[in-house]
Amino acid sequence: MASYCILEDFEVHKNKKFLEIAENLKPELLVQNVSPARLIKIEKNEMQETVVTAEEPASELRKKILKKGDSVILDFGTHHVGYVTLDLCSVGSHQDAPAYIQLRFAERLDELSSSAAEYDGWISRSWIQEEHIHVDVLPEKRRLPRRYAFRYLEIRVIDVSPKFSLGVKNAWMEDVSSVRWQDAKPIRSQDEVLNRIDEVSIRTLHNCMQDVFEDGPKRDRRMWLGDLRLQARANYETFQNYDLVKRCLYLFGGLTFNEGKIAACIFTEPELDPDDTYLFDYALLYGSVLLDYYEQTEDMETLKDLYPIAIRQIEVGLSYLDENGVIPDHSGEFWCFVDWGEGLNTQAASLAILIYSMRYGIRLAKHMGDESRIDWLQEKMQTLKESAISKFWDEKQQLFVSGSNRQVSWATQVWMILARVFPKEKNRELILHTIDVNPRIRMVSPYMYHHFIDALIRCDEKERALEEMKRYWGEMINDGADTFWELYNPYNKYESPYGSVIVNSFCHAWSCTPTYFLRKFYHLNDEKEEL
Amino acid sequence: MASYCILEDFEVHKNKKFLEIAENLKPELLVQNVSPARLIKIEKNEMQETVVTAEEPASELRKKILKKGDSVILDFGTHHVGYVTLDLCSVGSHQDAPAYIQLRFAERLDELSSSAAEYDGWISRSWIQEEHIHVDVLPEKRRLPRRYAFRYLEIRVIDVSPKFSLGVKNAWMEDVSSVRWQDAKPIRSQDEVLNRIDEVSIRTLHNCMQDVFEDGPKRDRRMWLGDLRLQARANYETFQNYDLVKRCLYLFGGLTFNEGKIAACIFTEPELDPDDTYLFDYALLYGSVLLDYYEQTEDMETLKDLYPIAIRQIEVGLSYLDENGVIPDHSGEFWCFVDWGEGLNTQAASLAILIYSMRYGIRLAKHMGDESRIDWLQEKMQTLKESAISKFWDEKQQLFVSGSNRQVSWATQVWMILARVFPKEKNRELILHTIDVNPRIRMVSPYMYHHFIDALIRCDEKERALEEMKRYWGEMINDGADTFWELYNPYNKYESPYGSVIVNSFCHAWSCTPTYFLRKFYHLNDEKEEL
Repeated sequence: MASYCILEDFEVHKNKKFLEIAENLKPELLVQNVSPARLIKIEKNEMQETVVTAEEPASELRKKILKKGDSVILDFGTHHVGYVTLDLCSVGSHQDAPAYIQLRFAERLDELSSSAAEYDGWISRSWIQEEHIHVDVLPEKRRLPRRYAFRYLEIRVIDVSPKFSLGVKNAWMEDVSSVRWQDAKPIRSQDEVLNRIDEVSIRTLHNCMQDVFEDGPKRDRRMWLGDLRLQARANYETFQNYDLVKRCLYLFGGLTFNEGKIAACIFTEPELDPDDTYLFDYALLYGSVLLDYYEQTEDMETLKDLYPIAIRQIEVGLSYLDENGVIPDHSGEFWCFVDWGEGLNTQAASLAILIYSMRYGIRLAKHMGDESRIDWLQEKMQTLKESAISKFWDEKQQLFVSGSNRQVSWATQVWMILARVFPKEKNRELILHTIDVNPRIRMVSPYMYHHFIDALIRCDEKERALEEMKRYWGEMINDGADTFWELYNPYNKYESPYGSVIVNSFCHAWSCTPTYFLRKFYHLNDEKEEL
Repeated sequence: MASYCILEDFEVHKNKKFLEIAENLKPELLVQNVSPARLIKIEKNEMQETVVTAEEPASELRKKILKKGDSVILDFGTHHVGYVTLDLCSVGSHQDAPAYIQLRFAERLDELSSSAAEYDGWISRSWIQEEHIHVDVLPEKRRLPRRYAFRYLEIRVIDVSPKFSLGVKNAWMEDVSSVRWQDAKPIRSQDEVLNRIDEVSIRTLHNCMQDVFEDGPKRDRRMWLGDLRLQARANYETFQNYDLVKRCLYLFGGLTFNEGKIAACIFTEPELDPDDTYLFDYALLYGSVLLDYYEQTEDMETLKDLYPIAIRQIEVGLSYLDENGVIPDHSGEFWCFVDWGEGLNTQAASLAILIYSMRYGIRLAKHMGDESRIDWLQEKMQTLKESAISKFWDEKQQLFVSGSNRQVSWATQVWMILARVFPKEKNRELILHTIDVNPRIRMVSPYMYHHFIDALIRCDEKERALEEMKRYWGEMINDGADTFWELYNPYNKYESPYGSVIVNSFCHAWSCTPTYFLRKFYHLNDEKEEL
C-alpha cells in the first residue's frame, strides 16, 4: 500500500516571527573526518544473508589496481552521515578515456547484494544511494556533492580502458551532525547488551541531528513531528541540545494550515515549507513535545509563543468527534499514523491519542496558569474516556477493539494504556493480558515499540520493559544494526512498507529511544538523578 | 581487433622552450549560447533506422510534466560541442524525494536507440555520453560540469515520487570552440550538394578546434598528428587560425621519445604528456604539417625551431629499412596506421609514406637553404622509389602489392601515387586502373578517402575527384550527418573498429577536408585566388 497524503486546497500560514526565531537557531554543523576502517569482501551465505568473507587493512587500498569490472568495498567501521572524498589516480599508460565508476553507499551489507535496477517498490528509487560518475582527467580528488548515510562504500569500475587502471590513493568522509558523538557519555551497565543498545541509540540520534531533527538521513531526510517528539526525549538524556528542539518547535508552529492545523512534516529546502500532509496523531502530539521542552528548560517565552498552537491541535482533534463521541474510522487513509503494518485499524488508537494529548494539554495549561482551559480539558477528557470504554472496550475479551470489525491489536491496547483510560492497576492487568493473548495484529515499527515500552514502564513493569527492549532492539543488534532501523518486525525481518528493504532507512530517528528509557528510568547513566 | 600501442621503456624529452611557446598560444575558447531548436519523438522504422516521428516547438518544453519513466528529446538543430545547463523545477506537491534523471547526449539519432548497458566493444564504455544525476533540491539550475558533443539530448526521469513531477523550465548549451563558425564564409556553388558538403565540413572542423586540434570531441578528445595535418589544411582555407597550428606543432615538437621520435598523439590534461604510441606514418607526416604551415605563414622562426624534428623523423624512418631496402611488415601491430579496416596490409604503404615524407623534407630543406640535406634526401628517395617498384609493383596486375601475401588494396595504390613513385601520367593510369579493378580491400575512413581524393586531384582527375567526394561525403549527408564521421564505409554503414557504432565518433577531424579541396582546387570560395 502506497501511504502518502496530498492535501487539496490548503493554505500555508507563515508566522514570520516564529520562522525568524527558528532560523536564528539553525546550527552550524560539526564536521569530523573519518577514514575507512578496513576493506572487505562479501558473499551471500546459505541463509541468503550477506556476510563478510575476507578483510584487509584500509592501508591496502592504495595498492589496488582496478580494471574494468573490479570493485572494492570500504568499511567505515560504523554508520556515518556526511560527505565523501575520493582521491583517484590512474595507473599504467596515460589515461586515454574517462574512468566510469559506480559508487554504492550502504547502511547495511545487504544493500550491496541488492540490485537498484530491480527495485520496483512504490517509493522513489531515487533514494537508493548510488552514483555513476565519469572522471575525465585523473588524478582527481573528487568531493562528492551529495550527503550520504552509510557504513559501506563500494567503488566499482564500470570501465576504464585497456591502457590504464583506476587507483584510489585515499578515501575519507566528513561526518556531519549538529552534535559530537563523543559528547554523550556511555552508560555503564553490567549488562553488555544494554551498553551496546545505548551506544547504537546514541549513534542513531547523532546521525539524525542535522540542521533539524531528521527522521532518516538516508531516506526521507526531513522532519516529522512524530519522530521529533521521540528524538527530543532521547536528546534531553544525552546531547542536551535544547536549541535544536526549540528551533523545530518554532518551525512547526510557524507553518500552519487552514484552521491552524500543524503539518506532519516540514521541508527546509529549498525554503521552509510544510509537507501537504496532515496526520491526526502527529499534530496532537505537538503539545507533548512542547511540554517536554518546557519541563527541561523552563523557557517560558517559548511556552507562551507556542501554547496556543498546541491547544489549537486539541480543538481541531475534538472537532473530528462524531455523534457517538469517537473519531470516525480513517484506517483506509494516511490520516492517523500509529504504526506501519498492513491492516492495522487505527480508530480506537486515534481516540486514545486525542485523550493522551489532552492530558499534556492540561499540564501545559497549568504551567501557563490558564485555569479555564484546565477545567474545560478535564471535563472533555473525562467524557472521551467514557466514550472509549463504552465504544471500544470488549468486556468478554478484556481488551479494546477498533473499527467496525472489532479488530484487536497491540497498538490499540498500548495507546489506551498511555491515555490512562483506566486506572493504573487495570492498565497493568491490560498490558499483561495483551502480552498473554499476543494479538495477531502486531507492532512493526520502533516508533510503536517505543510506546509499548513506555506503557510497560508506566504500569510499573520495568523489568518486563527491559526484557522487551533487549528482545527487540537487542535482536536488531544481533542482526547487524550499527544504528537502529526504521522498521523491524522480528517475525518478518524483510518486511518493508515500500516494496523492498533496499529503500528502508536503517538509521531512523524514532528508533533511538532506548537511551532515553535506560537513562531516565533505570539511572544507568551514573551522573544523573531521576527527574 | 583492439588497436592500441603501449610503448615499453620509453623516455619523454620535454623541450621547455617549445612547450612554453605552445602554452602562450593556448586560445581562449569562444562561447556561444545555443537553445534547443525543437522537441522530437523517435522510433525505428522497418529498415531499423531511427527516425523522427513527431516534433514540437522547443517552447513546449516548459509545459511538460515528467513522471517516472517519462522522457523528452531536445534537438539543438545541428552538432555542437560544449556545456549544458538545465533549469529544473518540481511540479505538484513539495519535492519529497530526489529526482533521479538519466541524460543521454547523441551526435546521431541512432545512439538514442542503442543501449549503453549492452555495449560490449573493446574501447571504453566510458565514452558513451550519458549521465545519471540525482537532484536533491528543486528548483535547480544545473550546469553539467562535463563537455559533450551532441545534437540531441534525451532527458529521462528514472524516478521522482508519486507526489511531484519534474519540470524543465529551460535548457541551453554553451557551444565552445577556438573559432566562430560564422567566420568561415560559405562557398557558393550551383551544386547544392557541394554547398552542403562544405558547410558540414566547416562545422566538423569548428567543433574539433578546441584548445588544440582535437580528433573527435565526443570520443578520443585528444590531438593526433594524422588528424592535425588534415585539419590544418582545412583551417587555412577557412578559419585561418595559424596560431593554433603553430601551438600544436610546438607541442609535438616539444614532447619527443627516445631517438627524437615524435608521439602519434598528445594529451593536454592533466598536464602535457605524449601518448605512449608511436605511429610510423604519423611521425613522418610531421614535416608535411610544418611545410604547409610555413608556406602559409612564412614564419621562419618556427621553421628553424622545428625543422630538425621533421628531419629526425625521416632519419628514424630510414633506420627501419631492412636489407631489401623496404620497411618490414608490421601489419599485425598498431604501428603504421594508414587506415582502419580489418586485414589491411600496410607494408607497401609504409614505404610509400616514407618516400612521400622525404619529398616534403626536401622542400623544407630548400626553405632552410640546407643544401647537403637536399642532396642526401634526393638520393635516398630515388633508391627507395626503385625498391618500391622492384619489391611491390606487380607488372601483370599493373598494381602495387603489399606483404608476403601480395595483398592488393586501394590504400597501397593511393599512397604509391602520392609518393610519386611513378611519373604523373603513369600515376593517372594507376588510379584509373584501381577504380576499374576495385580491389576488395577497400578504404574505410575519411582519412584514407582524403588521400584518395588528393591522389585523383594530383593526377588531374579533378572531375572524378569531385564525383567521388560527392559519392562519399554526400552519402554521409544523406545518411544524416551534421558533421562528418570518423568512419564511413558506404558498403557497411554499421562498421566500427571498436565493436559497436555507439562509440564511433560522428564529428571527426580527419573527415573535414572536403572544404579544403573545394576551396583550394575548385575555387568555390569566390574571394580566393588559386595558390
